Amino acid sequence: MSVNRSATVLVEVPRGLAGVVVTDTEIGDVRGLEGFYHYRQYSAVELAQTRPFEDVWHLLVHGELPDAERAAAFAAETAALRRLPDDVRAALPAIAAASGRSGPLAGLRTALSLLGAAQGFRPVYDIDTDERRRDALLAAAVVPTLLTALHRLGKGLDPVEPREDLSYAANYLYMLTGSEPDPARIRAVEQYLISTIDHGFNASTFTARVITSTGADIAACLVGAVGALSGPLHGGAPSRALDTLDAIGTPERIDPWIRERVLAGDRIMGFGHPVYRTEDPRSRMLREIAQNFGGPRVEFAVEVERRVEAILAELKPGRELHTNVEFYAGVVMELCGLPREMFTPTFAAARVVGWSANILEQAQDSKIIRPAARYVGPGAPVRVPEAA
Amino acid sequence: MSVNRSATVLVEVPRGLAGVVVTDTEIGDVRGLEGFYHYRQYSAVELAQTRPFEDVWHLLVHGELPDAERAAAFAAETAALRRLPDDVRAALPAIAAASGRSGPLAGLRTALSLLGAAQGFRPVYDIDTDERRRDALLAAAVVPTLLTALHRLGKGLDPVEPREDLSYAANYLYMLTGSEPDPARIRAVEQYLISTIDHGFNASTFTARVITSTGADIAACLVGAVGALSGPLHGGAPSRALDTLDAIGTPERIDPWIRERVLAGDRIMGFGHPVYRTEDPRSRMLREIAQNFGGPRVEFAVEVERRVEAILAELKPGRELHTNVEFYAGVVMELCGLPREMFTPTFAAARVVGWSANILEQAQDSKIIRPAARYVGPGAPVRVPEAA
Repeated sequence: MSVNRSATVLVEVPRGLAGVVVTDTEIGDVRGLEGFYHYRQYSAVELAQTRPFEDVWHLLVHGELPDAERAAAFAAETAALRRLPDDVRAALPAIAAASGRSGPLAGLRTALSLLGAAQGFRPVYDIDTDERRRDALLAAAVVPTLLTALHRLGKGLDPVEPREDLSYAANYLYMLTGSEPDPARIRAVEQYLISTIDHGFNASTFTARVITSTGADIAACLVGAVGALSGPLHGGAPSRALDTLDAIGTPERIDPWIRERVLAGDRIMGFGHPVYRTEDPRSRMLREIAQNFGGPRVEFAVEVERRVEAILAELKPGRELHTNVEFYAGVVMELCGLPREMFTPTFAAARVVGWSANILEQAQDSKIIRPAARYVGPGAPVRVPEAA
Repeated sequence: MSVNRSATVLVEVPRGLAGVVVTDTEIGDVRGLEGFYHYRQYSAVELAQTRPFEDVWHLLVHGELPDAERAAAFAAETAALRRLPDDVRAALPAIAAASGRSGPLAGLRTALSLLGAAQGFRPVYDIDTDERRRDALLAAAVVPTLLTALHRLGKGLDPVEPREDLSYAANYLYMLTGSEPDPARIRAVEQYLISTIDHGFNASTFTARVITSTGADIAACLVGAVGALSGPLHGGAPSRALDTLDAIGTPERIDPWIRERVLAGDRIMGFGHPVYRTEDPRSRMLREIAQNFGGPRVEFAVEVERRVEAILAELKPGRELHTNVEFYAGVVMELCGLPREMFTPTFAAARVVGWSANILEQAQDSKIIRPAARYVGPGAPVRVPEAA
């Protein structure tokens, strides 16, 4: 620590705030050395394997898994929130038309901002826990509706109205395609969604919490999070991992293609994670899901994974580089009929629940998050020169 | 430091990241003990007293004050960016109608999001410095146009098209009222705007930089910043300080009103600052501007300030509590004919330039800002109970 000329004591920390504890949380954690992550006290993968999305949503937002009665009530409560208010629905064609060049997350950012305003969302510090939770549930419930409507409008198709009789995941696929999806695909997407609801203190979650700490309304918090997720360093890669599979093309091209990239020092999309030193537990689950579907695409992906790990072990011994969530997430989403431009938006449709839980937790604190910068420019003050 | 079960070393820091250095900056600094703040190497107050807004904008974004020729070119360049693209203009009535309940910053948030998408803003890490600066100048240049159009639409009035022959400040007042403002008011607003362009690493500036660090586009960064600014703990108070003047009402009520509040432990809006231990330098400048206008309202504000400081010195000796920027900012904006609901939006019309400079600086770094949280919930993992 060192004292500078401001009234603030400056504290030195690792670059990018890596490892800097901003807050205590009861929402979950990632244990990178163990290849394990959890929501509340439960393994996230186990939740994905055994529970519907709505139960895990309830766990995140209410702090506990629901019993059968409350599960049914919560599913009904959130399903009833899917329909867009008329003023938001009316604005979507203009938003879709304007957002074509910047992609679906830019459209979601605008539409969620409009929705919060249209619903009169109020500053979190001016409202009680119940009202905060109402706003958070509403905003998350409409994300699939907004995403699919904007996607269809962008393709010249009419939006499909949500159905209350379908689960979150089933209704998402239904609104995207306009037809009833098959149960295996619904469940695969649902498991993917559950597994990506939350994952430690990532940049979008942190953004949501910083905005919450100013007391802003929940739409402001979520819109900032969507913006952070749209950054290529954060939400960018599930479709790029598939692009890698396409670029390799055939099994006999795997070895030369990968060796060339690794020797050139290029990153192989879909491999490596900043936290996990083991296999990414999401990757393992998603590979199993993909293998249950089977087919040449899945076999090819498994073969690419096997060869990349072998080549990396040979060329970069000691580096633990495994597939990350993006690799098999892309394969699973493709198997379920999701177009590539909807991969990151689908991620957003899950992560919005994690953001909600983090916003609700942060709103119980009343301390603004306001770090410091260190001025390193030319000595000040210098007299302002007279204008010529 | 302590090692936890993740691969990350956790670092303990003060709550709310107070004093934690996130980055080096050349943009400016606040010296709270000296009652001094600066942009680049120049006193911000001196810049406000001697320069037009556009020169300071150039200083922030290009790193140096312009000579006469470049000043004229920059003013012309930014003036030409004020007009809204047709698709954004067409969407404003819907945004204004939907945003009525959440206020003008919610409308700005939506409109800026739409503008960035409509202009096809690209991720900052995918574009060069020139394209980033173009996006940043465009987004800032349209903020007054968006704010005044949304305000007028909300009142049932047609928006006033921007004029390129007016300065940033003059054009802002012109678009707000539809008539040419007088030079003293233009200059007062311009000095206020210059003095609030930047002020250390506040929550909205930090939000903008976190989003930038993911590589997101500049609209995503600015929209997050607007969201943070909308929080009552951040951008909330210039109109509340005026509400205090109104509540006191007359000079003889000052003493009992203030004593009652101070003894009850209430905060007096417009007094106190987390960084300054002296008079807020912005407050001093704005008081002088107000006194140049004169009149009973200004005399009353000065008297309230004098009495509050005396009563606080008596009841809370040793506490350095002075007027902050909000107190006289409110008085000056009122004198200049700005309605109270436009006080924080006017602040945003200045701060957007500071955000821009911070985004451009952050975009030169390639490290994502990703801190940590500490899990303090029930021990994990617990087996997921079977659904009933």
